Order: sequence, then structure tokens, then C-alpha cells
Amino acid sequence: MSFLLPSLNSKKDIDDVIRNTADKIVVLRFGRQYDVTCLQLDQILEKSSADLGNMAVIYTVEVDEVPVYRRYFDITLIPSTIFFFNSQHIKVDWETADHTKFIGSFKTKQDFLDVVEVIYRGVMKGKVMIRSPLDPRSVPKYELIYKDI
Amino acid sequence: MSFLLPSLNSKKDIDDVIRNTADKIVVLRFGRQYDVTCLQLDQILEKSSADLGNMAVIYTVEVDEVPVYRRYFDITLIPSTIFFFNSQHIKVDWETADHTKFIGSFKTKQDFLDVVEVIYRGVMKGKVMIRSPLDPRSVPKYELIYKDI
Repeated sequence: MSFLLPSLNSKKDIDDVIRNTADKIVVLRFGRQYDVTCLQLDQILEKSSADLGNMAVIYTVEVDEVPVYRRYFDITLIPSTIFFFNSQHIKVDWETADHTKFIGSFKTKQDFLDVVEVIYRGVMKGKVMIRSPLDPRSVPKYELIYKDI
Repeated sequence: MSFLLPSLNSKKDIDDVIRNTADKIVVLRFGRQYDVTCLQLDQILEKSSADLGNMAVIYTVEVDEVPVYRRYFDITLIPSTIFFFNSQHIKVDWETADHTKFIGSFKTKQDFLDVVEVIYRGVMKGKVMIRSPLDPRSVPKYELIYKDI
């Protein structure tokens, strides 16, 4: 939980935000407040928040408080950041195997601002899949683990 | 394209149905009209349609007409059947690695009706992840291919 970003603590809170936020990108950071990478990411998100204006709103979510969304979004690594626009989950091609979420921390505030801006321009044109503007070297690489495979 | 089921032929058609169908399950069958397995599935869906009453609506989608949703839903095998409720993509645990869609044809009309009924009861309780009621032997097994892995 960041002190500067609002947090969502239940499935209902998350559902309400996703359903009722119109014409802005909803950024949900799923993580744990004392995780080192989360702290790093939260700092970037906090600093970005004011610069986003009416383009996006950012919330933190303690992943252990919403096990149903942990399973639903298949969150096996934290932090995981997920984007929505007008109730729809927006997917982003980070040049990784998982387009549903960004895993880890963004490298800089500018990287995050660039991502939000590109997503915003995309959704304004009706897109639901966005190509990440980031240098792939700025996207953390994680081993994907597929259970039961 | 089935002659008895309505079809959606553009991203806009799909978006409108997903966004504007309230309190009913939306079933989207992504496939190709002359594919043998699609024909088999469509027959089951057609026969089920009347029995579903106000619980669900079924649409067919020619997957080649909506490349953006083919990529968005990562449809690499057809037919793929996807469920929504009040704009939200409902995931189902089929005891396969992919909870986002049902791949292949249901074995019988009763199997499909059972699935819809269980999803409906789940979403009425606010669930977004549903456990399939099917015998896993009735769920087709496909090799999952992860590109670039």
C-alpha cells in the first residue's frame, strides 16, 4: 500500500472501479506493500500520478486480499500491473509471452508515462491490443511457469 | 456461420453485444463455418439455444473477420468458445492450462447446457472464475503452442 496512491481492498472495490471509470485508463498494481520491487514500482507510479492528468488513474491492490482476482488474472509474480479502459482489460504486447500484464517494475517514470500515453492513444482509436513503446531491454524478463504442464 | 444462430461480423458488433447484454451469459463461438469441428459444435449450440431461455445468448464469429479479437483472445485453435457476463470475460477451469476459452466441440448438448447453467449460477453469486462441471474426459485435449517460447 502506497501512502499516495489509493488502494482497493476487495473484489467489490475493484469491480466498482473497473465498471465505473469512464474514458480513463485504470491502472491496477497487484502486489505486496513491503515487497522490494513493489516499493520501487510504487515510487514510480506515485511520481507519475500527477502527470497523468485525466488520462489515467492508478490504484494499488494487495494481491493476498483478492485471491479471486489473483487466480482470474493468473498472477504468479508480483508486482503485476494490469490496464483497463471502459471496463475492458487492455492487453499490451511487451514482446514477452504474456500480454495480459506487466510484470516487475518499470525502469523509469518516463517509461511508465510513455506506456500510459501509448495505451491512451490506442484505446482512443478503439484498440484493445497495444504494442508497447518500451525498449524490450527495459521490460523485465521472467521465467513463465505453467502449472500442470 | 450457422443459419440458426446470429453471427457477429465485426469488432464493433462484438463490442456492442458484450457491452449491452445485461444479466445474460454471452457465448461467443469463434471459428470457421465450414470447419468440421465447428459444424459439430454449431449443431450442439443450435439445439441448446432454445433451452437456455433467458440465461444465455449464443453468437457465432468468423474468426478471420476479427483479427484483432483473434489476437486479443489468443485464438490459435478453432472452434474456441468464450463466455462473458455483464461485460466481463468469465474464465472457466476446464482442468486444462487455458481458462480463458473452451477449445473444440462439446461432446453433447447436455454437456453444454450443464456448463452454461453452472456458469450462470456462479456469476449470480459474483464469481468470475468457474469450475467446469464436465468430466475432464469430455474436454478435448490440445497441445498448447506458445509462440516464441
